[in-house]
Amino acid sequence: MGEMTSLLLPEVKDALRSGDEKILAESVAALTQELLAADIADLLLTLEHDDAVKLFKALEPRKRVHAFEFLGLEEQEKLVENLGADTLGSVLDGMSSDDRADLFRYLPEAARERLYPMLAQAERNDVKRLLEFKEGTAGSVMSTEYATIRPDMTVSEALEHLRHVAPQRETIYVLFVVDDQRRLVGVVSLRELITAVTGSRVSSIMRREVISARATADREEVAALISKYDFLALPIVDENNVMLGIVTHDDVIDVIKAEATEDAQKVGGVEALELPYLETPVLTMVRKRGLWLVLLFVGQMFTANAMSHFENEIMVALVLALFVPMIISSGGNSGGQAASLIIRALAVGEVRISDWWRVVRREVITGLMLGGLLGVLGFVQVLVRAWFSPQEYRGHGMLVAATITVSLVVIVMWGSLAGSMLPILLKRLGLDPATSSTPFVATLCDVTGIVIYFAIAIFMLRGTLL
Amino acid sequence: MGEMTSLLLPEVKDALRSGDEKILAESVAALTQELLAADIADLLLTLEHDDAVKLFKALEPRKRVHAFEFLGLEEQEKLVENLGADTLGSVLDGMSSDDRADLFRYLPEAARERLYPMLAQAERNDVKRLLEFKEGTAGSVMSTEYATIRPDMTVSEALEHLRHVAPQRETIYVLFVVDDQRRLVGVVSLRELITAVTGSRVSSIMRREVISARATADREEVAALISKYDFLALPIVDENNVMLGIVTHDDVIDVIKAEATEDAQKVGGVEALELPYLETPVLTMVRKRGLWLVLLFVGQMFTANAMSHFENEIMVALVLALFVPMIISSGGNSGGQAASLIIRALAVGEVRISDWWRVVRREVITGLMLGGLLGVLGFVQVLVRAWFSPQEYRGHGMLVAATITVSLVVIVMWGSLAGSMLPILLKRLGLDPATSSTPFVATLCDVTGIVIYFAIAIFMLRGTLL
Repeated sequence: MGEMTSLLLPEVKDALRSGDEKILAESVAALTQELLAADIADLLLTLEHDDAVKLFKALEPRKRVHAFEFLGLEEQEKLVENLGADTLGSVLDGMSSDDRADLFRYLPEAARERLYPMLAQAERNDVKRLLEFKEGTAGSVMSTEYATIRPDMTVSEALEHLRHVAPQRETIYVLFVVDDQRRLVGVVSLRELITAVTGSRVSSIMRREVISARATADREEVAALISKYDFLALPIVDENNVMLGIVTHDDVIDVIKAEATEDAQKVGGVEALELPYLETPVLTMVRKRGLWLVLLFVGQMFTANAMSHFENEIMVALVLALFVPMIISSGGNSGGQAASLIIRALAVGEVRISDWWRVVRREVITGLMLGGLLGVLGFVQVLVRAWFSPQEYRGHGMLVAATITVSLVVIVMWGSLAGSMLPILLKRLGLDPATSSTPFVATLCDVTGIVIYFAIAIFMLRGTLL
Repeated sequence: MGEMTSLLLPEVKDALRSGDEKILAESVAALTQELLAADIADLLLTLEHDDAVKLFKALEPRKRVHAFEFLGLEEQEKLVENLGADTLGSVLDGMSSDDRADLFRYLPEAARERLYPMLAQAERNDVKRLLEFKEGTAGSVMSTEYATIRPDMTVSEALEHLRHVAPQRETIYVLFVVDDQRRLVGVVSLRELITAVTGSRVSSIMRREVISARATADREEVAALISKYDFLALPIVDENNVMLGIVTHDDVIDVIKAEATEDAQKVGGVEALELPYLETPVLTMVRKRGLWLVLLFVGQMFTANAMSHFENEIMVALVLALFVPMIISSGGNSGGQAASLIIRALAVGEVRISDWWRVVRREVITGLMLGGLLGVLGFVQVLVRAWFSPQEYRGHGMLVAATITVSLVVIVMWGSLAGSMLPILLKRLGLDPATSSTPFVATLCDVTGIVIYFAIAIFMLRGTLL
């Protein structure tokens, strides 16, 4: 919560105790006068539900709409359930078209049907049109409140037009030039308009090569375009280049955050959740996690198989079994590190598929050095253990220590290599690199690590311990 | 690369073959006329280095500056090394102040010293002032090119003023109202200015409660403010509220991406890298990964200790050792899933510390269900193995299967719980939740998992197999 809102909280609570609606409205108006919509939303979140409803009703209508837009969908739904048709209708009509569509998309069918009659005809049609776009498309996140001008307007006519429509537009800083059929023919920034000669025509100052996206495009594509060009707004068009809406810079932040969340979940070995953690039903959670856990478990079953191949060796030198978890998980850890680094680097474009050979060289060198580091530690550890319980090592402490060291160097290097190449390979195959999750890489390294470890042990200890 | 740039590429390459500078400049001007700066930057990246330098020199000066700003720091440095003082000076002078400071911050000391004399006095001072702010602060990412107006200006005077300064300002859509001492006293959006009555004073329409940040504030704080309020620009002030610069909405995208990268690396068990993966020196990489690997390795050493406590049990029933990797890594996997989910949910604010009890309940239920799922699979697996090699199980296949199942249920549940609580605990202690990386949680689950597994085995198999 902002500093300002926490300072105001006691006064607001005081005001809410007043029984008289008029007095309440006046004091609320005075208290919230200098507050931004996001801060009022904060206030609403801080209050008990009944108080929040009371405060919300007492707000000045314009503030009410803006504060509502800054609430999360869950809180919006709660308010919707507790407001009368009057208040609700004006809030919904006043909302920006993309936020309103988001809310309708989120609400259950029954609530939607209850709300439609409260909307004015134009807004109702707007919502219905936007809901037709599939979740995740540009159309599903766009707003229909953009400012258009005509190519034959003069600069001063365009500015005069903007003065009138400004309050109903999400942005007036990017102006879309459309022809009689509302086809997008150009774009002008307000900055260009303001600095242009007032008598000149819009057509003479507009940029004709407009970058736009189709309503059916992926919202991540749209976010990438806006972020690449540092746009304030990107026009969304249909197949005939007719303007349908805009996606604005603040939507990009949401998309980028959502993308990073999706990747973080996949890297952690979870299928991406559609809802926030606490709102995801437990059964959905079990499904999204269970699928991967089962796959990993099946992979891990091979560790038992792999180990049972070396039962004879373990029987003779039980001490070898003690180091299995330590050695294989060192490979998994180093593989997980490499995978995390490369998945993220691919996501932000720092590493491309064509860089794979550079990555191989880096990871082999890094892996050898890291393996050497752990190898030295492992060597010391085994020697110390052998010092205290020599009978377990039957006098071959030094040889066992050397086996552990060599195994660590090879397995850590192998982990780094496998962990870094898997995401690149997946991307090359057109799959999502984030699928090569840390637990997946760890499992791969566990199974292969056991084979590598015992192979090295048999080779180095044959005729002595084994 | 954008569609347009790839279409133009052959023509551009053709033009670059022309020997005459004037002809080249003309054809380049014609070709790039409708291209946006980001697209020209794309073109430069696609060309061979020599061709890129040639094209860059042939660009119209204003395009040159903008295209340069859209290049990455690595590419900017390469160009800087290959341009003469003339071209370079005009590019550097023309750059927006934050991008210029970023470049100087990135360049080695020697290159910086070589470039300073090419800058005009004002720009040189600007860079030096900005470089004084520590990396990661608001001051280090802010731009000094903002538009200010005076409170006693009329609306039309303010608009007239904007017309003149617009080309040199990063944004004119948010106007900062300053007094004689350049102290920030208010803020007005261009939208408000345009829709206001032309004769009214700025002081009568400006918002006086301005949300701003100190230059020493963390850049992530600034990004959070801009993203919370959907601002286009946030003013940065000193301790006397004197205006120093602005941070704009496009900077936020970079900060959010950088934050997500840092978290992804930490969750993967790597200390955050300062440079992109391919630009990080190998020794730095070894250090950033080695520290964690060594810590995890030391943790893993306890698995050998833990296992050696149960040597007698393993000696009697070797078969128990075979399932160790599978069982403990199931705990680690489920813990890693829970940790990834909670770390990300904390980062985006979906889960707060106060939600810990709700998380506990969810994770215990989810963990039990997931453990049950794996338990069934483990049960079947052991029975099948016991069917094929009954001598290993000495007729107690069913009992061993039950032991594995119970262990899986307990350990997977324990993993979910530990993985979800660790990030919350770290946050509560004021530490970074992302430090509870997947490999860290896995190691914790490995060590504890071994103890849990053998304890359950001893309890269930005493008097039969053991």
